[in-house]
Amino acid sequence: MGSKSDLPVMQAAVDILEQFGVETEVTIVSAHRTPDRMVQYAKTATTRGLKVIIAGAGGAAHLPGMVASLTTLPVIGVPVKSSNSMDGWDSILSILQMPGGVPVATVALNGAKNAGILAASILALSDGGLANNLTDYKQQLTEKVNQQIDELGGDVL
Amino acid sequence: MGSKSDLPVMQAAVDILEQFGVETEVTIVSAHRTPDRMVQYAKTATTRGLKVIIAGAGGAAHLPGMVASLTTLPVIGVPVKSSNSMDGWDSILSILQMPGGVPVATVALNGAKNAGILAASILALSDGGLANNLTDYKQQLTEKVNQQIDELGGDVL
Amino acid sequence: MGSKSDLPVMQAAVDILEQFGVETEVTIVSAHRTPDRMVQYAKTATTRGLKVIIAGAGGAAHLPGMVASLTTLPVIGVPVKSSNSMDGWDSILSILQMPGGVPVATVALNGAKNAGILAASILALSDGGLANNLTDYKQQLTEKVNQQIDELGGDVL
Amino acid sequence: MGSKSDLPVMQAAVDILEQFGVETEVTIVSAHRTPDRMVQYAKTATTRGLKVIIAGAGGAAHLPGMVASLTTLPVIGVPVKSSNSMDGWDSILSILQMPGGVPVATVALNGAKNAGILAASILALSDGGLANNLTDYKQQLTEKVNQQIDELGGDVL
Amino acid sequence: MGSKSDLPVMQAAVDILEQFGVETEVTIVSAHRTPDRMVQYAKTATTRGLKVIIAGAGGAAHLPGMVASLTTLPVIGVPVKSSNSMDGWDSILSILQMPGGVPVATVALNGAKNAGILAASILALSDGGLANNLTDYKQQLTEKVNQQIDELGGDVL
Amino acid sequence: MGSKSDLPVMQAAVDILEQFGVETEVTIVSAHRTPDRMVQYAKTATTRGLKVIIAGAGGAAHLPGMVASLTTLPVIGVPVKSSNSMDGWDSILSILQMPGGVPVATVALNGAKNAGILAASILALSDGGLANNLTDYKQQLTEKVNQQIDELGGDVL
Amino acid sequence: MGSKSDLPVMQAAVDILEQFGVETEVTIVSAHRTPDRMVQYAKTATTRGLKVIIAGAGGAAHLPGMVASLTTLPVIGVPVKSSNSMDGWDSILSILQMPGGVPVATVALNGAKNAGILAASILALSDGGLANNLTDYKQQLTEKVNQQIDELGGDVL
Amino acid sequence: MGSKSDLPVMQAAVDILEQFGVETEVTIVSAHRTPDRMVQYAKTATTRGLKVIIAGAGGAAHLPGMVASLTTLPVIGVPVKSSNSMDGWDSILSILQMPGGVPVATVALNGAKNAGILAASILALSDGGLANNLTDYKQQLTEKVNQQIDELGGDVL
Repeated sequence: MGSKSDLPVMQAAVDILEQFGVETEVTIVSAHRTPDRMVQYAKTATTRGLKVIIAGAGGAAHLPGMVASLTTLPVIGVPVKSSNSMDGWDSILSILQMPGGVPVATVALNGAKNAGILAASILALSDGGLANNLTDYKQQLTEKVNQQIDELGGDVL
Repeated sequence: MGSKSDLPVMQAAVDILEQFGVETEVTIVSAHRTPDRMVQYAKTATTRGLKVIIAGAGGAAHLPGMVASLTTLPVIGVPVKSSNSMDGWDSILSILQMPGGVPVATVALNGAKNAGILAASILALSDGGLANNLTDYKQQLTEKVNQQIDELGGDVL
Repeated sequence: MGSKSDLPVMQAAVDILEQFGVETEVTIVSAHRTPDRMVQYAKTATTRGLKVIIAGAGGAAHLPGMVASLTTLPVIGVPVKSSNSMDGWDSILSILQMPGGVPVATVALNGAKNAGILAASILALSDGGLANNLTDYKQQLTEKVNQQIDELGGDVL
Repeated sequence: MGSKSDLPVMQAAVDILEQFGVETEVTIVSAHRTPDRMVQYAKTATTRGLKVIIAGAGGAAHLPGMVASLTTLPVIGVPVKSSNSMDGWDSILSILQMPGGVPVATVALNGAKNAGILAASILALSDGGLANNLTDYKQQLTEKVNQQIDELGGDVL
Repeated sequence: MGSKSDLPVMQAAVDILEQFGVETEVTIVSAHRTPDRMVQYAKTATTRGLKVIIAGAGGAAHLPGMVASLTTLPVIGVPVKSSNSMDGWDSILSILQMPGGVPVATVALNGAKNAGILAASILALSDGGLANNLTDYKQQLTEKVNQQIDELGGDVL
Repeated sequence: MGSKSDLPVMQAAVDILEQFGVETEVTIVSAHRTPDRMVQYAKTATTRGLKVIIAGAGGAAHLPGMVASLTTLPVIGVPVKSSNSMDGWDSILSILQMPGGVPVATVALNGAKNAGILAASILALSDGGLANNLTDYKQQLTEKVNQQIDELGGDVL
Repeated sequence: MGSKSDLPVMQAAVDILEQFGVETEVTIVSAHRTPDRMVQYAKTATTRGLKVIIAGAGGAAHLPGMVASLTTLPVIGVPVKSSNSMDGWDSILSILQMPGGVPVATVALNGAKNAGILAASILALSDGGLANNLTDYKQQLTEKVNQQIDELGGDVL
Repeated sequence: MGSKSDLPVMQAAVDILEQFGVETEVTIVSAHRTPDRMVQYAKTATTRGLKVIIAGAGGAAHLPGMVASLTTLPVIGVPVKSSNSMDGWDSILSILQMPGGVPVATVALNGAKNAGILAASILALSDGGLANNLTDYKQQLTEKVNQQIDELGGDVL
C-alpha cells in the first residue's frame, strides 16, 4: 500500500487471505515518496517468490500501475477513498484506465476484501485446497443470506 | 461477451492471447437475453477446463459480475463503450463496483487487450513459457518506444 | 432486496403498499451471493401469483436487471445508496442503463416509496378500489402542502 | 413526447408496441411550450381510456414528471439525449430523481424500445395474449443470440 | 419554493431582499404535489403585481422551469441540495438546462441569497433607490474584505 | 463574449433580441486577454446606458462573474461549449457557482437564445410593448407545437 | 486567497514555505468582492518583488485565472473545497481549464502544501540553498515511509 | 511525453517555447513501457541542465507525477485527451490529484501551449529578456482581441 493511512482499508485483503490460508506480506511502498523502493520491490517480486501483488492507493494513485509496469506478475489495484478525493473518482480512474500493454486488475472503491478473494482465485488455479476454500466461501455467502431470510421471518419460496 | 456487437472491441483480447500462444474460446453469453445459458456457462467453466474468464459488456453490464457469482475462477471484466452509454461510465461502474465477496478484475474502458495480457499473467504463474512470453512482450513495449524516439530524431539521454 | 442492509431503505415500499392495502412479500435475493435463488425466485414469480416485483440493490446492482431478464412481469428497480458507492451513481447506472429488450422501471436513488406507489399505480389498472386509493393519496399530498402554507402564515393567492 | 425532434428516438416505443399488438396514440405535448395542453392531456388520460403513458423528453425534461403529477396512471419516462445536453445526464436526472409521492418509471437514455416493452408488461397483467407475446419476445431474444453464436462458428458448450 | 423543507435555504433570498427594502411574498408551490396551484400561481403572477419570481426546489426540480413556461416574468431558479440528490447535480441540471424559448435564470446550488440580489438588480433598473442600495451593498462586500485583511495583520499593498 | 469563436453560439441572443425589437451592442471582452478592457466595459456599462449584460464564454469562463463583480446591472451568463472542455462542465460550473454577493443569471449550455429572452423579460418589466412581444412569442411557441401535431396526423385530444 | 475562510486550507502553503526559509506575504484578494484590489495586487506584483503567486479560492474560483491574466509571474492555483461546491469540482474546473495564453499551475483540491512546494521548486532554480532544502525534504518523505515500515514490523525486502 | 501519439497535442508547448527563444528538448518517456528510462530521465534532469520539465500523458497518466517524485525541478503536467478516456477526466485526475509532498503543476486538458507559457514564466524569473518576451506576448493577446473587435465592426466603448 502507498501509505500507512491506507491500512484500515487494506487490512481486509490481509484478513480474507489469512482466512483462506494464503501467506501474505504487508508493506508500504509509496510511488511518490519512495520511487526507488517501488522499482526494487516490483523488480524483485518474482525472484522473492511473490505470485500476486495487491496494491492499494488513493488520490492520483500511481502505485498499482507503476508496479504493473515493472513486473509480469498479476497486479490487483485497490482504489482507496481518501480525503479531498472527490468521492474516490481520482483513485479509481488513476488505477483503472491503464494504457494498452500494462493491465491492472482493478476492484471496487475500498474493495480490499475483493482484492484478496481475487488473488486467492488466481492462486487457486494451481492449488486445489485453496480452490475448495473458495468454493466453501461462496457457500458461506449463500448461507449468510439464508440466515438473513430466516431473521426476516422465513422464506417465501 | 454479451453481444456480437462487442466483438470489435473484444477481439483484441483474443489476438493478444493467440500471440502469447494461449488457447481461447470465444462465444456470446448474454446476461439479459440468455440468462440460463449464462448460468450454465459459468457453472461448467471449471469442469470444461477453463482457467480464466474474460467477460466484456456495455451499458448496465451484468455479465462479468454474474459470471463471477457463479464460478470461483478469476473473472476479468471489460467495460465496453456502447452507444447511449454516457461515455462508458455505466459499464465501468456496473462491472467495477461489485459487492464484497464477489470480485471482478476490471480493466480500462474498451481495454480488451489488457484483459488478455492480465489473463496471460495469471496463467503464467504455472507456465514458465508463457511467463517468458510476457517478459518478451514487456521488452517489445520498451523497444517500440525506443523506435519512436529514433523517429523523433534520436535520444536526448 | 439484495441484502438485509437494504431494508431501512426498502421498508418505505412495504409501508406505502400496506397503506394502499396491497399485499406484499418481502425477502432477500442476492444476485451475487444467491444466484440460483435469484433464478428460481424470478422464474416462479408469475406462477406464485406475483404481479409486480420491486428490486432494490446498491453498488454494481445487478438484481433488478437480472430478475427482469428472467420474468415478463414488470420489474421496478430501486437504486440504493450504499457506502463506498460514489453518491449512488453506481447503483443508478447499473439499474437504469439496461439494454434493449429487458427494461427495468427505475426510480430515484433510495426511492423505495415511489417504487411502492408505482407498483400500486400498475395494479390499480385492474383494481378500482386501489385506483381510488391512489387518487386519495394524491389529494393528501396536496393537502399537506396546504397545511404547510397555513403554517407559513396563510396563502398569498 | 416533448417535441417532434424526439420522434426518431420515441418511434421505437411505437414500433415494439405495434409488434405486440398494443394500440398506441402518438402526440406532442410540451411541458414548457404547451403547459395547458399538458395539464389537459394528463388530466383526461384516464377518462380517454389510456392505461400507460410513455413520456420522452430531453434536457431539463419536465414532461414525464409533470404528467405523473397530474394522473394516477403509470408514467414511463424516456430520457432523450439531445444536443448541448452533456451526454444526456440532464434528461436522466430530470426524469429519474422525482420526489417522494410522484414516481416516474425511468428507462435508459434513449431507451424508448424498453419503454414500450415495459408498458406491454404492465398491460399484460390483465391480458393473457399480450403476456404470451412477451414470453415469445423473450424467446426471440434468446434465439437471436443463438444465431449470433452460430455465426461465430458454433457453440462451445 | 417547492416544499417547506426548502425554507432554511430559501430564507436567505427573503432576508437580503428585505435588507434592500424590496417587498416579498413567500409561499409554497409544489410542481408535483400541487400542479394546479402552480399553474394558477404562475398565470396570475403578473396581474397580482409580481415583478420577479424566485423559485427554489431540489431533486428533479421542475418548479422553476414550469413557472417560467407559464409567465413572461423573469424567473430565477435556485437549485436546492436535498438528501439523496447526488451532491445537487439533479436540481442544478433540472433547472439550468431549459430548452430554447423558456429561460430560467439559474444561480448556484443553495444560492438563494444571490437569487435575492439578482432580483434586486432587475428591479433596480427602474428604481433608483434600490440601485443605490445595490451599490452600497457592493461597497460593503469590499469593506468586509478590508476588515478581514486588518484581522490578518494589515495590508501588504 | 470572450472570443470571436463564441459568436456562432452567441449570435442567437442577438437574433432573438432584434426579433423583439430590443437594441443590442455586440463586442468582444476577454477576461483573460483584455482584463483592463473588461474592467472598463463593466464599470462604464451603467453610464453608457446598458440595462442588461449577456456574457458568454467557454472553459474556465470568468467573464460573466467578473463583469458581475464590477457592475450592479443584471448579468446573464451563457456557458459556451468549447473544444477540450469536457462536455461544457467547466464553463457551466465557472459561471454558475458564484459566491454569495455576486450573482450571475446562468442559462443552459450554449443557451444564448434563452439569454436573449431572459434579457427581454427583464426589460419588459418597464416596457409594455416588449411585454406584449414576449406574450406573442410564447403564443408562437405553442402554435409551432400545434403545427407539429398536425404534421403528425392531427391531435388526439 | 479569496476569503478569510480559505485560510485553514491555505495556511499549509505558508507553513511549508516558512519551513523552507522562503519569505511569504499572506493577504486576501477577492476577485468578486474586491476586483479593483485584485487588479492592483496583480499589476504591482512584479514591482513589489514577488516571484511566485499562490492563489486559492473555492466555487467559481476566478482569482487564480484573473491574477494570471494581469501578471507574467507564475501563478499557482489551489482549488479550495467549499460548502455547496459539489465535492470541489467547481473550483477545480474554474482554475484548471484556462484558455490558451494564460496558464495557471493548478494543484490538487485543497493542495495548498503542494502549492508551497511547487513555489519553492520554482524559486530553487536560482537559489542553491533552497534547492538543497527541497532535496532534504524529499529525503524526509522517504524516511517517514521507512519509519512507517518499521512500525508495521520491519521491511520485507 | 508518454507516447508519440501525444505529439500533436504536445507540439504546441515546443512551438510557443521556441517562439519565446527558450531551448527545448523533446523526447518520449513512458512511465509504463519504459519505467527504467523514466527513472533515469528524471534523476539526471538536473545534472543535464534542465530547468523545467513538461510531461504530457493520457488515460491513467502517471508520467508527470512519477517524474515529480524523482526530481526537485518544477514539473508541469499536461492531461492529454486520448480515445476511450471519458472526455479526459482520467488524465486530469491522474495528474492533478497528487498527494502532499509531490506537486505537479497541472494545466488544462490538452493545454500544452499553456504548459509552455508557464515554463517560460518560471524561467523568466531569472531571465529579463524572456520576461520581456512574456510581456510582449500578453500584449499580442490583447491586440488580437482588438483586431477581432475591428472585424466585428469597431469598438463600442
